Amino acid sequence: MRDQIAVVGVGCTRFGDLFEQGYEDLICDAAFQAYDDAGVDPADIGAAYLGTYMPGPSGGKAAVSLADALRLYDRPVTRVENYCATGTDAVRNACMAIASGTYDIVLVVGAEKLKDRGGRGLPRFGHPLLGKGNSAPGLFALAANRYMHTYGMGRETLAKVAVKNHYNGARNPKAHLRSEVTVDKVLAAPMISSPFGLFDCCPTTDGAAAAILCRADLAPRFKSEPIWVKGVGLSVTTGRPYYDPTFDYLGFRSTAVASRSAYEMAGIAPGDIDFAEVHDCFTWTEISNVEDLGFCAKGEAWHWVEEGRTTLGGDLPINPSGGLKSFGHPIGASGVRMIYECVQQLRGDCGERQVADAQLGLAHNVGGPGAVSCVVVLGNEK
Amino acid sequence: MRDQIAVVGVGCTRFGDLFEQGYEDLICDAAFQAYDDAGVDPADIGAAYLGTYMPGPSGGKAAVSLADALRLYDRPVTRVENYCATGTDAVRNACMAIASGTYDIVLVVGAEKLKDRGGRGLPRFGHPLLGKGNSAPGLFALAANRYMHTYGMGRETLAKVAVKNHYNGARNPKAHLRSEVTVDKVLAAPMISSPFGLFDCCPTTDGAAAAILCRADLAPRFKSEPIWVKGVGLSVTTGRPYYDPTFDYLGFRSTAVASRSAYEMAGIAPGDIDFAEVHDCFTWTEISNVEDLGFCAKGEAWHWVEEGRTTLGGDLPINPSGGLKSFGHPIGASGVRMIYECVQQLRGDCGERQVADAQLGLAHNVGGPGAVSCVVVLGNEK
Repeated sequence: MRDQIAVVGVGCTRFGDLFEQGYEDLICDAAFQAYDDAGVDPADIGAAYLGTYMPGPSGGKAAVSLADALRLYDRPVTRVENYCATGTDAVRNACMAIASGTYDIVLVVGAEKLKDRGGRGLPRFGHPLLGKGNSAPGLFALAANRYMHTYGMGRETLAKVAVKNHYNGARNPKAHLRSEVTVDKVLAAPMISSPFGLFDCCPTTDGAAAAILCRADLAPRFKSEPIWVKGVGLSVTTGRPYYDPTFDYLGFRSTAVASRSAYEMAGIAPGDIDFAEVHDCFTWTEISNVEDLGFCAKGEAWHWVEEGRTTLGGDLPINPSGGLKSFGHPIGASGVRMIYECVQQLRGDCGERQVADAQLGLAHNVGGPGAVSCVVVLGNEK
Repeated sequence: MRDQIAVVGVGCTRFGDLFEQGYEDLICDAAFQAYDDAGVDPADIGAAYLGTYMPGPSGGKAAVSLADALRLYDRPVTRVENYCATGTDAVRNACMAIASGTYDIVLVVGAEKLKDRGGRGLPRFGHPLLGKGNSAPGLFALAANRYMHTYGMGRETLAKVAVKNHYNGARNPKAHLRSEVTVDKVLAAPMISSPFGLFDCCPTTDGAAAAILCRADLAPRFKSEPIWVKGVGLSVTTGRPYYDPTFDYLGFRSTAVASRSAYEMAGIAPGDIDFAEVHDCFTWTEISNVEDLGFCAKGEAWHWVEEGRTTLGGDLPINPSGGLKSFGHPIGASGVRMIYECVQQLRGDCGERQVADAQLGLAHNVGGPGAVSCVVVLGNEK
């Protein structure tokens, strides 16, 4: 990208079962927090991006819903959709819109209402071989089982990811599930799709998050110490990963490729990252992500979990926000919510869940399962 | 935008009732035509954009469907959705991705399968006051009636738009409806939503179109005389235009705003445009578009139709391709198909439907109805 993009404002709704708020209410809450945080006049927003997977109750009203919610009329608003990587890909496109010289200040909102879809719920994945088991837990569980078999990991390690993320989320006032859990509780929970019990799965959540991005030279107008987008990367592999003869069921190539793009743009190595918000839709996914992002070799991350290296006090805190596991996962909102967390961590505003000496953070979505990943690297120095 | 973007290759499937081809087949046909036209190696595609409103039979498989269809693995692929402006907005975002310095060569595909959706069909617009009449014909008809009442236009003028576009489409080998019609035939057709009879409405169509865009300095590698994206503009107004107290039912503000942005970026006035592909979802919409795009004053375009000024031999040929009316309207594909037509016109490759001395062309989508418009201005000189 021709220049680094500044993040000068962020906002996030409480995540949870928000039956009392509509899709547009959530967009408003998140966007006005971001306006206030940046001190930006909504009239100065040059363009907007909305990341949403299944917008509104009827679907297909995305860009105009953002315009209506915020009375952001006449402006260009684009909906971006990319499975579970929708939120971070919206951020990536907003960055490019600014770097292209077309807009100075861009709003990104990720929003999703998942709880009041009635009997419709999430769509099923169209995998004919997997029949009734082709749900997200079922597909990720296939890979988790293969990983456990190959590397000798047990369910206790998965449980420790849940314990860590619930611990972090319990310290986050906006998280969906704010209760701590124990390894025993996680292991005793009802089985969803072996090896995933209830506490190995992220919840179904409503929520929205927002960010205001701007041109580097305009950033001082809003923040004396803005946060910088150092690099972005997106990678799409096959939408039928479980058919792919090269798929080893141990991790996701899209994450490896997307993160390499982002590191290259940022001019850093994975080891330079101080903390990461990664896509822990299931406990195993977090373990795989840590490896796929290049923080350690394949088969090693579960040892990191055992050694506590991914906890808040560890050498690479993962999901200090509580992650999808505890913060919740309103699909299109999650990636932008990660940007919200990264910005707050890089500003040092996270209180008891603050990562010490946080200078470079990473946000990561993976969806599909494994078909698409997007990575955003943020830092507090240009 | 920091630089002009070159269009070095375009492709388009035949549009029509393509029951024998799947969504991914259509993507392949369009993209490989564009690869061949540009002489580009697919391995050199840095990123891709897919414009699709309701992808595939199950929805929600957009970006990965493009990757699978084209074996374009590991690359960044983003789905853009913006009602009927989906295709042109995908092109707009692809341009910004290149101008941002992130990618050198970008593929844009617009694709839609509308004919084999079974009982599902198009979603209904969620307008509670309009009840059972809240279909696309019903909503656009409200505005058409108001326009006819205000300016004294009769159904015969609408019919002449259909006659012109069928005439053009009959000369286009890829158009969905290649038959000419007469004013009498149009007026005698079954009524869909007064004043729109069957021939005032565009058909429901399957199809895909593609374009290869690249950085200005790379363009000579592919074409000695590339076509240039001179300007882009997108505008979103309310998703409830018929509630908007400022809505006069005579035209769409989003088109006026989007086109002004595109003209400003291109450094031109509306009168500089030599021909335009505009969003004639209904015959009246074309008349309104010609005014909203600034080619003439409100209430004047129907006189232009009567005077034959928008025919192939007129002073501002509108929809030389046949338009949505005759070429068809696979939603996300239409905007990219317009780019295909504009590029062919600007190259002088259109045979008997060639616009004389075509140097500046315009592509325009409007959807919602009226909620969102996107305009792309193309020229054969940088």
